[in-house]
This record gives sequence, C-alpha cells and structure tokens, in this order.
Amino acid sequence: MSYPRLIENLISHLMKLPGVGRRSAERMVFWFLNTSPEDTQSFCQNILALKERMRLCTVCNHLSEKEVCEICENPGRDQTIICVVEDHKHLLAIERSGMYRGVYHVLLGAISPTEGRGPEDLRLERLMKRIQEKGVKEVVMATDPDTEGEMTALHIMKELRPLGVKVTRIGLGIPVGSSVEYADASTLALSMSSRRVIE
Amino acid sequence: MSYPRLIENLISHLMKLPGVGRRSAERMVFWFLNTSPEDTQSFCQNILALKERMRLCTVCNHLSEKEVCEICENPGRDQTIICVVEDHKHLLAIERSGMYRGVYHVLLGAISPTEGRGPEDLRLERLMKRIQEKGVKEVVMATDPDTEGEMTALHIMKELRPLGVKVTRIGLGIPVGSSVEYADASTLALSMSSRRVIE
Repeated sequence: MSYPRLIENLISHLMKLPGVGRRSAERMVFWFLNTSPEDTQSFCQNILALKERMRLCTVCNHLSEKEVCEICENPGRDQTIICVVEDHKHLLAIERSGMYRGVYHVLLGAISPTEGRGPEDLRLERLMKRIQEKGVKEVVMATDPDTEGEMTALHIMKELRPLGVKVTRIGLGIPVGSSVEYADASTLALSMSSRRVIE
Repeated sequence: MSYPRLIENLISHLMKLPGVGRRSAERMVFWFLNTSPEDTQSFCQNILALKERMRLCTVCNHLSEKEVCEICENPGRDQTIICVVEDHKHLLAIERSGMYRGVYHVLLGAISPTEGRGPEDLRLERLMKRIQEKGVKEVVMATDPDTEGEMTALHIMKELRPLGVKVTRIGLGIPVGSSVEYADASTLALSMSSRRVIE
C-alpha cells in the first residue's frame, strides 16, 4: 500500500531533484497540498519561465535573459580582463567575493576524459576571437584545482600562448581537490588578489 | 551581485519547500536548467494535477482522486473496524506496517489549544454516523501519544461511549529495536501500566 497514484507520481518526480529523498519528497507533496492554488501556479510558472527564457550570453556563455548578459553589458566592468571559469556556479562564487571587476568566459565544463570531454569540446574559438578583437590584456584561469580543471587550464594556456596575452592563474586559498563552488568569499578574494603570471 | 532575476525568483520559490535552503535551491535551479523541457513540463503538470484532482474521501477523509478512496472501496478490507488517525502520513505509516486490514477515519488534525483547535473542530459527526449505520464493532484510537493526541483520544472515547462500540488504543511503549535504557520516564511508566499477560 502506498499513496494515491497522483501523489506517488509527484513523489517520484520530486525525488529526481538533487538532495531530495523519499521522505523529503513526501513532505514537499503535503506542502503543495496545503498551499494555495495561486502559489502553486506561480511556483510552476517560475520553473517554466526559467526553461523558456533563460539562455546563454552570446559573448561569455553566462546565464542571461538577453543576447548579452548583465556583466558583459556593464560599462563599469573592465573588458580587458577575462576570467575563465568552468561553469555558472563558479562565476557566481567569484562575483560574491567582490574582488573581481573584469568580465568572464564560462567554459560550460572542463576537459574530462572519464566523461568523454576532450580539449575540442571546450570551443575556445569565441574566447580567442574576443581576446584578439577586444584588446584583452589578461586572462585569469579560474578553473578548479583538480585534475580536470588543471588539464583544462594547461590546454587553454597552450592555446593562448601564440596570442601573446598575459595568462594568470588564481592561486592562494583554494584547497587542492576542492572546488571553486564551495570556497568561501574571503578565500576567493585572497585567491583573486594573489593571482600570478604563469610562465 | 546575484543570479539573474529569473533564477533568483525560482530560488526564493524553491526555498519555501520544507527542508530546502538556499544552497539546495540553487542546485535545484541548475538541475532544472539541465533537464529537458519535456521533463520540466511533466514535473509541473504533476504538481498542478495534484492540486486540481486530489480531494478528500467523503467516507474517511483519506486523500483520493475519487469520491471514495481505494481503502474504503476495497472489498477485502474489514469495514467493521475503524482506525482513527490524526493525518494522512499516520495512515500511511500504519498501512506500511501491513498489520491492519480494517478501514480508517482521518481527523485532519488533533485537538490543540495552542493552535486554537478545540474538540468541536474534530467534526466527528460523519464518524459517529458511520459507526451507527455500518455495524462497526471496534474503533482503534491511533492518535499520537503526546498531549494533543491523548486529549483527542479521550474526547473521542467520551463521545463514542453512548454508541456502545468497543474502543481500543494502539499499544504504547518501547519501540521495537530500542532499549529500556533509552526510553524516557513517561514512556516507561506507560509501558509498565499497559503490560499484559504472556500466554
């Protein structure tokens, strides 16, 4: 014996969410049952709006509702420094540190042989073109200090060498084996200010 | 700096769910971003279907898509025993035990002076009518063994007395797998006073 079919369906859907087990899913179902129809409507509309309207910035791959994201569009940001990050969560973590005023390039994933992503999947063409055309002075490598991230950073540095642009690597602060996503703001601030030239 | 507005909106909606903090909500948003539009559609449709089609059984108050729930409708269930529970989760917990083959009455909340719910809010009319009309032989009180649950059980027992139906209380005491050592004093007192002869 289990819950009515409608509830079991929703439980199995909710259990697909990260970090949600059966118990949490059951609690969520009862929350939905006790919430006003208007709130539920607006909840679902938010999810659908996200799927429908969220796209990638055509300049840097950051999440945006428009062609060009708020960071790329912001005249207060230094367009001559590009910070290369693995994904959106990493970008936001760096933004929260408040120490970085340049712009970004989001790779949307590192090189990962185990997941079948090679150097060619990084699609660096747009980044290279941007560096050449916009007078970029510095590229900060902010990939994770793990195997995939280091491999990715090395590959990108190799590709950028012919362009003669200064390439730096965020340094102090982030424990090796951890992830940019989980570093606290002050560690990231330190990491950003202690970046150094990679020879 | 935070996420784009669409994402922040969804994060604040997701944070209303029980047990979901900001970190979990962020992870969920990225899960939605990476899920197919079809899966997201079906996710939302499930939530909306729940709100639209789930109602209370007109006999026992259990959750059901139809007028009468699957348990009340099941000819294999003994209609002459009614188990009184506080809410739907309690009903399901008893179902999972596999030891009960009778039917239920869901109170939809216990008497709780602190939350302003008095005996009149229990709405026992339907239960009383059912006992009188269906030849019910036994009513099992399965409310919680806390102040509210005990108060509720006592009130219902008082109301049922004139009907002459047998009223029983589920066994209270030390949970299976636990130890006398860890049971609190009131549980042990109850456990001691409800001791029974072993044949």
